[in-house]
Amino acid sequence: MSDLAQALMAQDITAIRTLMKNWTPPAIAASMKELSQKDQAVMFRILPRHEAALVFEFLDRALQARLLKALGQEDVANILNHMAPDDRTGLLEESPAAVTKKLLEVLSPQEREVALSLLGYPKGSIGRLMTPHYVAVKQEWTVREVLDYVRAHGTNSETLSVLYVVDDNGVLVDDIRVREFLLAPHNRLVSDMMDRRCVKLTATDAAESAVSVFLSEDRKALPVTDTSGVLIGIVTIDDVLKIAENRATAEIQKVGGSEALDEPYMSIGFWRMVRKRGGWLVVLFLGEMLTATAMGFFEGEIEKAVVLALFVPLIISSGGNSGSQATTLVIRALAIGEVRLADWWRVMRREILSGLALGSILGTIGFFRIAVWSIFSKIYGPHWLLVALTVGVSLVGIVMWGTLAGSMLPFFLRRLGFDPATSSAPFVATLVDVTGLVIYFSVAYLFLRGTLL
Amino acid sequence: MSDLAQALMAQDITAIRTLMKNWTPPAIAASMKELSQKDQAVMFRILPRHEAALVFEFLDRALQARLLKALGQEDVANILNHMAPDDRTGLLEESPAAVTKKLLEVLSPQEREVALSLLGYPKGSIGRLMTPHYVAVKQEWTVREVLDYVRAHGTNSETLSVLYVVDDNGVLVDDIRVREFLLAPHNRLVSDMMDRRCVKLTATDAAESAVSVFLSEDRKALPVTDTSGVLIGIVTIDDVLKIAENRATAEIQKVGGSEALDEPYMSIGFWRMVRKRGGWLVVLFLGEMLTATAMGFFEGEIEKAVVLALFVPLIISSGGNSGSQATTLVIRALAIGEVRLADWWRVMRREILSGLALGSILGTIGFFRIAVWSIFSKIYGPHWLLVALTVGVSLVGIVMWGTLAGSMLPFFLRRLGFDPATSSAPFVATLVDVTGLVIYFSVAYLFLRGTLL
Repeated sequence: MSDLAQALMAQDITAIRTLMKNWTPPAIAASMKELSQKDQAVMFRILPRHEAALVFEFLDRALQARLLKALGQEDVANILNHMAPDDRTGLLEESPAAVTKKLLEVLSPQEREVALSLLGYPKGSIGRLMTPHYVAVKQEWTVREVLDYVRAHGTNSETLSVLYVVDDNGVLVDDIRVREFLLAPHNRLVSDMMDRRCVKLTATDAAESAVSVFLSEDRKALPVTDTSGVLIGIVTIDDVLKIAENRATAEIQKVGGSEALDEPYMSIGFWRMVRKRGGWLVVLFLGEMLTATAMGFFEGEIEKAVVLALFVPLIISSGGNSGSQATTLVIRALAIGEVRLADWWRVMRREILSGLALGSILGTIGFFRIAVWSIFSKIYGPHWLLVALTVGVSLVGIVMWGTLAGSMLPFFLRRLGFDPATSSAPFVATLVDVTGLVIYFSVAYLFLRGTLL
Repeated sequence: MSDLAQALMAQDITAIRTLMKNWTPPAIAASMKELSQKDQAVMFRILPRHEAALVFEFLDRALQARLLKALGQEDVANILNHMAPDDRTGLLEESPAAVTKKLLEVLSPQEREVALSLLGYPKGSIGRLMTPHYVAVKQEWTVREVLDYVRAHGTNSETLSVLYVVDDNGVLVDDIRVREFLLAPHNRLVSDMMDRRCVKLTATDAAESAVSVFLSEDRKALPVTDTSGVLIGIVTIDDVLKIAENRATAEIQKVGGSEALDEPYMSIGFWRMVRKRGGWLVVLFLGEMLTATAMGFFEGEIEKAVVLALFVPLIISSGGNSGSQATTLVIRALAIGEVRLADWWRVMRREILSGLALGSILGTIGFFRIAVWSIFSKIYGPHWLLVALTVGVSLVGIVMWGTLAGSMLPFFLRRLGFDPATSSAPFVATLVDVTGLVIYFSVAYLFLRGTLL
């Protein structure tokens, strides 16, 4: 890397070109990140034209925006016209509207039409991931005609492993692997090779829905049609991998009780991050204030039996932990389609039993912890057995309630049209804390009335 | 589907074949799940040979195992010999050892060699994802020779979009898109088309490391070499998408405070699930018992000032929530490579400041909550201002501590060689609960000494 910096300082263009000759576009893009802003523009101008467009796609958005500002109109036009349409759609939709307008103006008429039509699909839809660079053939063609056509028109295609067969109205009727054409006799008709089986995506569907289709179909690219079945583009699996990873990141962040950052942790602005985290923390804090209210309600009981207060953190956190577990399991199962909305009843039955089993385990441990401790210490007073019973029975009830609430909340949120991941671990814990206190003090009243209370 | 059931009942093979003609292998696999075990075997035998092998790959493991038992040796041999090697490796490694041995015996000698060598790589390594079905060419060949070779040997190739160039020792020297051969003059030499740039994976690396390479390289398949650079297979992006989704699922489940289930929620056995969840719940419960010990330590203070007990759940949960947030953000950033181990210092600086900001927000709300409440109620006694100060200042300290502990724990675990995701939200919450109590009562002692305490 220091060789590169030296060459740049000396403005030694030959040396720079020699250095970069063996680098892939992603490697060049990575090396550019470590240069000064001025050197970035210099280096980018040195790159051969077609290489520049390739490297550009691997830069992050901030650097892309800076370069577009720094470069002349001709260079910008070259880059944008050569970018893959799906990547370009991403760039255009994330630029400020005025910049998008300017960028669209430098596109060639055909490319502008492509860009505008892709931008016409809703944000987060499959349409925004499409590239129109595929090869479509007609069923009445011969294998020779298909291969000639590919040779003439295939240069821009994102993938050549599959060709798509359309009828005269442009409706998708089949997909055939290019390998089959390579292996078939030259005079065979396309219609003789068709099996009319074809999995496709719809442009207006959510981009995330493509993840499960790609997972179950084992394909590298899938055709996209409009609602009337006309082939309008393809989506390749590399874009779907990105969607899947971004969805998982957002989901994990939400499960952890924060808004999804939507930006890398190290590069998001400090105050923006504080706002995204603080929002939920405040909501949780306001919810948790109800515990103080609930505790205030039982202040008389605590004054009479301080021993009860000792187990409050243990009791409520057990409910929170079991609720966190249940809610994250169900959130993920819903997200990847393992569980559907209609399965709520089966999940509920399963979770009631799980809660009972888990609660019994924790309740038993809790009971013996107090019982054994009381042999050696007088801290739990003369009624330690009743206290141990109170704690044990409360634990069964609270763990069951936490498990049930945690597992049902994601279904409830999905049913109302919200993202199930909103029922984060801390959210469920807070909910269970308040109700857990009520359960605990009610059980205490039942067992300790007449003795401690 | 009922048409199918009827045809099966009537044993009407022609009707069944007609029905299935327009179905894709995944669709046939999905329809089989809803049949009785007997009908599954019947239907499978009706499928044409090559189709049966295709459908088999889309069935889940349990059904695969059942079919292998129900089918004759000839059918089993047909299926296994025609399965994609990467899928077959998955099946073999998940079967009991005795079954694996039997299955290996029915393979043809060449396929057995392939299967055994793939099984030789460690579980979870890139080697286990490999398929040996790629096309490698020599640099001294012409384009015509390459195309003839592809026609003769390409039938089995998993992807034909890229061909790999190897030297006489089998060392990978370049990758070239098949499209370039289709578009090049027939007498051109391969060596003239090479740029000697080639991204590759190493067979012994962890399968998960392939995810970030595929994300940054925008490729559909990548070549795999052994440590000496010899090309031994390729990995396709569809397998990497599965790895990425499984990793995300395991991570989310761990963040939620459970062991990774490693099986779909709806199909994992009840007691196995209880064990995976119960293990962590018990660990957390034992940890949380320390809160009872800590509370016991401050029992005297609580007896003197019951008002302090009222805020215990609010205080400790705020620390837990901020810790959960911080830990999940850092766990995910580490998993996808946004943050490296060496960045711990930058993360720490960032999180101390975040903790201060978030703690100040919650502390202020907490202070005013008590202050405003005290205008209308006498519940917090004559020293409400000191109580409000205690709660406010404790919140700043506890949120800072939660944020710091939550963000550093994943680094610490990674450094020790553990999975950072082990520092789940509930785990951090438990840790912070115990220390939070100590902070709270220490602050209380500072502010309330001489008045309430």
